[in-house]
Amino acid sequence: MIESPSELCRGVCAGDRRSLARAITLLESRRADDEPRAIELLQALSSTHQRGLRIGVSGPPGVGKSSLLESLGMHLIDLGHRPFVLVVDPSSARAGGSILGDKTRMTRLSRAPQAFVRPSPAGDVAGGISRSAGDVLLACEAAGFGPSLVETVGVGQAEMAVMQVVDLLLLLLEPGAGDELQGIKRGLNEWADVVAVNKADGERSEAARRTSAEFAAAFSLLRGPSAPVVLPVSARDGAGIAELWRELERRHDALSASGELAERRRQQLVAELEQRLSQALIGEFMRDPARRQALAEAEREVLAGIRLPRAAVRRLLGGTG
Amino acid sequence: MIESPSELCRGVCAGDRRSLARAITLLESRRADDEPRAIELLQALSSTHQRGLRIGVSGPPGVGKSSLLESLGMHLIDLGHRPFVLVVDPSSARAGGSILGDKTRMTRLSRAPQAFVRPSPAGDVAGGISRSAGDVLLACEAAGFGPSLVETVGVGQAEMAVMQVVDLLLLLLEPGAGDELQGIKRGLNEWADVVAVNKADGERSEAARRTSAEFAAAFSLLRGPSAPVVLPVSARDGAGIAELWRELERRHDALSASGELAERRRQQLVAELEQRLSQALIGEFMRDPARRQALAEAEREVLAGIRLPRAAVRRLLGGTG
Repeated sequence: MIESPSELCRGVCAGDRRSLARAITLLESRRADDEPRAIELLQALSSTHQRGLRIGVSGPPGVGKSSLLESLGMHLIDLGHRPFVLVVDPSSARAGGSILGDKTRMTRLSRAPQAFVRPSPAGDVAGGISRSAGDVLLACEAAGFGPSLVETVGVGQAEMAVMQVVDLLLLLLEPGAGDELQGIKRGLNEWADVVAVNKADGERSEAARRTSAEFAAAFSLLRGPSAPVVLPVSARDGAGIAELWRELERRHDALSASGELAERRRQQLVAELEQRLSQALIGEFMRDPARRQALAEAEREVLAGIRLPRAAVRRLLGGTG
Repeated sequence: MIESPSELCRGVCAGDRRSLARAITLLESRRADDEPRAIELLQALSSTHQRGLRIGVSGPPGVGKSSLLESLGMHLIDLGHRPFVLVVDPSSARAGGSILGDKTRMTRLSRAPQAFVRPSPAGDVAGGISRSAGDVLLACEAAGFGPSLVETVGVGQAEMAVMQVVDLLLLLLEPGAGDELQGIKRGLNEWADVVAVNKADGERSEAARRTSAEFAAAFSLLRGPSAPVVLPVSARDGAGIAELWRELERRHDALSASGELAERRRQQLVAELEQRLSQALIGEFMRDPARRQALAEAEREVLAGIRLPRAAVRRLLGGTG
């Protein structure tokens, strides 16, 4: 039996987890015949509530993002929140589907009834969030979850994509400033609103504190007044997690008071409208097998230097170029 | 009399400045009936030569970009090069046309027969480069000019746009690390391949050297092995300009040897193909006055929270949403 979008919406808003899971499946569907129901569901959901606080969490591989999400998530539960965590499974980009690898690493949080941990299907960009991430966040907010923590893997384009659905970006680093920084991709430094240096535990506490001070100075020099606060934390021991949450809230309040939060959300809406229109028009174009083949051929010709992009596009659209 | 694209190409390749100016006018034209001739000209031009070295030059307002372009351009002439300088006139974005304000500031360079200084018409983004900048660069390269220096004004989106046509980005700063850094927008720090600290003259020499060292340390921490070299220069006295050019060449050689230059150019071509296809499809869409009005209305509804972008796009394309 297929529920109507309004039934599904009622289930979600009543906090029913199975309704929420079915709603997310519908929102993530790429089947064209699911689109009208997905949109009806979204409109129903969005009329029921205000958008909640959404935080992107990024950082190089191995820095402890999963542990931090677990630790921060449990702290949020202690404070009476009902956190939603959208996890990017790096393997899903290759495997073509979501594997629960990361979810099972957050053992306490994924079992907690006050939290909801969900792996995101692979996005259009490897390690990125999927096109439907914003819709999934909306459904979880309608179900009473929040704040939302959206994990991304540190690649430039993925950061740009996550910045289109979140309010703030938390960048996670680790002690020591040398080699592992090769993992910080372009985009991360520029967009970070708050920075945490993880693994500030045991004998690494002092190194984490030193690294934090060094990064704070570098950020201050390169970003001036918009530089992020840098805090040492230990996802393992929980040290600094309460301070990190307070800093994220402070940053959110400051962005809210200055009007920048409203401006970011406004820009997100305009950009999403343009992108979805673009994608829909390209989608129409690509539904024609002959045109799809012509585009692949055009790309080959452009890369081989036979034709310039401007000429190739004119030719694709029926000109002679 | 209208020349044929092949006549125009012959004139350009013979180094005739009037042919080059007419070619650029054709390439920058947004008239749909100019497009076939523009594309024919481009194809002819691109078959005559290899792409040359292109350097983006960016930095906060007031840092001395025009003086540096003049100084570096004159140095390139001394070395036997024939530099092309594409200048963004910030006022053109407002005035709707190119004003020669910046050109007249480069008094020596714009009079030198070995150089070509051209103001760029306003891009789609304020202070950015126009969509046709890459085509203009190609025409100037075919006319025997090079290397090319492409000025941009320091705003994030403009930097992203310039990175689609240049090989390297030179970021210009000035002594002192405090307040004026508010002018460095997101994107600049991440994309800079080489950094110069200008105004290293007279009593500011020491401050410029100190600022260079501080920035070198900050970049090294945040970008690791990809950190740019930071050099003090004086556009006024010419101090450090020869070293700056050597560093730009070194960086270019390193990117070339590692294969990153070829990869950047490959990505530029693929991105340009996708963007031009997208723009062409949206262009077709917007040529229908009813659809154009519907899109404006959709944007209003999305910003007012009446409809989500996904629903608005479905409605625009004929669904019921």
